[in-house]
Amino acid sequence: MVRIGIIGSEGRMGQALARAVTDGGHELAGGIDRGGDPAALADRSDVLVDFSAPVALEANLHAAIGAGIPMVIGTTGLEDRHHVAIDNAARQLAVLQTGNTSLGITLLARLVREAAASLGPEWDIEIVEMHHRMKVDAPSGTALLLGEAAAAGRGIELAGNSESGRDGHTGARQQGAIGFAALRGGTVAGEHSVIVAGEEERLTLSHSAENRMIFARGAVKAAQWLIGRDAGRYAMDDILAPDPAPAATGA
Amino acid sequence: MVRIGIIGSEGRMGQALARAVTDGGHELAGGIDRGGDPAALADRSDVLVDFSAPVALEANLHAAIGAGIPMVIGTTGLEDRHHVAIDNAARQLAVLQTGNTSLGITLLARLVREAAASLGPEWDIEIVEMHHRMKVDAPSGTALLLGEAAAAGRGIELAGNSESGRDGHTGARQQGAIGFAALRGGTVAGEHSVIVAGEEERLTLSHSAENRMIFARGAVKAAQWLIGRDAGRYAMDDILAPDPAPAATGA
Amino acid sequence: MVRIGIIGSEGRMGQALARAVTDGGHELAGGIDRGGDPAALADRSDVLVDFSAPVALEANLHAAIGAGIPMVIGTTGLEDRHHVAIDNAARQLAVLQTGNTSLGITLLARLVREAAASLGPEWDIEIVEMHHRMKVDAPSGTALLLGEAAAAGRGIELAGNSESGRDGHTGARQQGAIGFAALRGGTVAGEHSVIVAGEEERLTLSHSAENRMIFARGAVKAAQWLIGRDAGRYAMDDILAPDPAPAATGA
Amino acid sequence: MVRIGIIGSEGRMGQALARAVTDGGHELAGGIDRGGDPAALADRSDVLVDFSAPVALEANLHAAIGAGIPMVIGTTGLEDRHHVAIDNAARQLAVLQTGNTSLGITLLARLVREAAASLGPEWDIEIVEMHHRMKVDAPSGTALLLGEAAAAGRGIELAGNSESGRDGHTGARQQGAIGFAALRGGTVAGEHSVIVAGEEERLTLSHSAENRMIFARGAVKAAQWLIGRDAGRYAMDDILAPDPAPAATGA
Repeated sequence: MVRIGIIGSEGRMGQALARAVTDGGHELAGGIDRGGDPAALADRSDVLVDFSAPVALEANLHAAIGAGIPMVIGTTGLEDRHHVAIDNAARQLAVLQTGNTSLGITLLARLVREAAASLGPEWDIEIVEMHHRMKVDAPSGTALLLGEAAAAGRGIELAGNSESGRDGHTGARQQGAIGFAALRGGTVAGEHSVIVAGEEERLTLSHSAENRMIFARGAVKAAQWLIGRDAGRYAMDDILAPDPAPAATGA
Repeated sequence: MVRIGIIGSEGRMGQALARAVTDGGHELAGGIDRGGDPAALADRSDVLVDFSAPVALEANLHAAIGAGIPMVIGTTGLEDRHHVAIDNAARQLAVLQTGNTSLGITLLARLVREAAASLGPEWDIEIVEMHHRMKVDAPSGTALLLGEAAAAGRGIELAGNSESGRDGHTGARQQGAIGFAALRGGTVAGEHSVIVAGEEERLTLSHSAENRMIFARGAVKAAQWLIGRDAGRYAMDDILAPDPAPAATGA
Repeated sequence: MVRIGIIGSEGRMGQALARAVTDGGHELAGGIDRGGDPAALADRSDVLVDFSAPVALEANLHAAIGAGIPMVIGTTGLEDRHHVAIDNAARQLAVLQTGNTSLGITLLARLVREAAASLGPEWDIEIVEMHHRMKVDAPSGTALLLGEAAAAGRGIELAGNSESGRDGHTGARQQGAIGFAALRGGTVAGEHSVIVAGEEERLTLSHSAENRMIFARGAVKAAQWLIGRDAGRYAMDDILAPDPAPAATGA
Repeated sequence: MVRIGIIGSEGRMGQALARAVTDGGHELAGGIDRGGDPAALADRSDVLVDFSAPVALEANLHAAIGAGIPMVIGTTGLEDRHHVAIDNAARQLAVLQTGNTSLGITLLARLVREAAASLGPEWDIEIVEMHHRMKVDAPSGTALLLGEAAAAGRGIELAGNSESGRDGHTGARQQGAIGFAALRGGTVAGEHSVIVAGEEERLTLSHSAENRMIFARGAVKAAQWLIGRDAGRYAMDDILAPDPAPAATGA
């Protein structure tokens, strides 16, 4: 049982985190929001989970360093200077920063990168996602994360190599492009498919979330995993078991 | 065994039709292309199948009337005056005009219309299609046909009620809109899904074509079905068995 | 706002119903379970919803007749004599009995019946479902309901025309058979797909439930719909808008 | 341009291979079937592709060794002694033996193994496949290959840990089991999905073949890849680019 302190506890994610902490058999050390004292929270926690705002990041990192405990960062909207601050803190702190705390999505990104690296650019990569009707932007952040994974596998930049929002006379598909399409409707929590289409065959790698608790649960899992780690900067991918040895499947 | 004459025999569809005629156990009465004589072809055919050009339509209709045989029209790019010509010819001729000769797509359109009519506008309708990398426009004609079916079921016009090519800050989904998304890649012959997404449940109605022969086969089936029909204008939907009686499934 | 009385209020479905009643903006008139008095509940309700046990059915029907209010029956395990009792009560009572209260599933069953009726037996029908890892039987009741709809569309009996649990040397598929397959895993609330596979094309009609509240919500919708109806026996299918007029989609 | 000799040239696969050789811009060095002379064929080939019968395997290996050229083996029904013969030949010969020559399936197997290795046994693995109505056995060989990959990822044996053909009262799913389900219908060339279902989220890794030419094309690709390799025994997985370096996707 781990004592977990939540920063940003009053937001929707903060509330989901509180539930995930107790569901997971851990102890909720407490939660703070704007104006709260991270140092006091750190003193009674084994690990911090921060889903608050970029402006609070540096104080939160200092609190974790001061208490000698690790920290998970899921705050969005980070800029370069925040990443520099995280890198600096990581010399004294085990810190895991991520834009997506789902283990399933993390694994999917790894598989997408590997598929893109294994197959040549004559295979076309398309990413389609569906979310509830209230979502106001497209493609989703997770779709972009998967697109980055595909681009990394191919050794290219996503910027300048993506096609999004096809409509009207588009011309033939550009070789090597990574395509995006967005569906909106109902109450869908989040579905993502990466299609790799070649000559008369197709791979599809998909993730389906039944609801948004999976992100809170993944963050709690990350917090637990960080306990006792060496100082350094980690990513969700590190939580997954290592890449297996070269295949011997008989295929 | 039916003697089938093909107008537009040298195009890709014309060649597929010739194969479908013989695969279906029928007799290929002959084929003509630009400059050929439709009257001579009609004289040795039991039915004509026209996948040529709008400019040839009137002469083809006259040839069919002259020979007293029915005619299937799959020619694309028809304008209002061509439809008037077809309506006029239909007083003396059994004629079936369609933009899509797949029986599966025809049935799908019927089911989509029915689903849209049965569920209220608080259910969101999305249409996503995938085609091979060479396709130059989006959404596909079939996707638009399915969108028209959905709009008809709801009693609205598709124009003014569709969202296509979402990208960037889109805002929340507009109630009652019909959304479109297009995927491109590989050699996919054609896949269409109509998603009807409500409160925590979702219907998906899909069609998958393994290759483009299904369109030629459907046209041949339509030609065979037209033999012996009364004069009039028909659609692919008429070939399907009639709407069943009101349900008694115990559901 | 409708006053809804729940019979079988302490079961899992009863609790979901109570939530759906208030979520839907209605008034929870009260709930009874084993040993409760349905007549007293009926007196303060506009409609009853019964998800209790077959043994209680007759008393519940009498209570509804006595109070002059309609009743929804979702109780499972009904035998012939219970159906006779419902038919008798339906002379004085608007009563809707169903094995599945999801509107989406109800519509899917109608579409499946129609697809099966429109396409000949040379199209193969397969039904595949996925449910959470704790489910102990296969295929699901809903899969069987969909199989019955397909059989009804074809004018055959499902019994004697189904293939389930293929494993080992099965031989080629039997023409006209309706196939079933069951997947189990995770926490999946319920997914059903009916595949109609023909020569080089395929239709897939699917339903996906995000959670089990859709059944409670559908029951409440049925209750509301029954208010003011003539005496008679109804089914969920009646709640859906009527079959649309013959198609004019231009397909 | 590579000169490719086909052993087993008159079978369905042999004919597809001949087409794939010329489609791929290579030269068909010739083909032999039962009774043909592999040594003569090897003399005028740069590489042999053997899709014949186990009984012919040793003579074919000797022919390749004699001519100093590599060999692809896709023959099915191999027993232990055949594998020993291949291992022995591989001291002098670059030889690639495989039960499945599709690159897409080969990559899918690798991804499945990796997913199974990365996620714990509390994630349920299900494998569902669909094939045309004439297929006489279930699950497909490819489904079993994918099941073996999943079992290898988990470090268990597939035998004793699989559930296939669920029907009737099955009881709850067994923890750690790998489930199989088979769909049959129409003319489907081959679709496989591996579902990894966890707590409120699900990964699905799928492959879809548009037709069976992909197997011939993959065999030709393997033949071309073998030219100039060191003696040794290879698998299709070796053709794919190596596992990428540990992830840095920012996930």
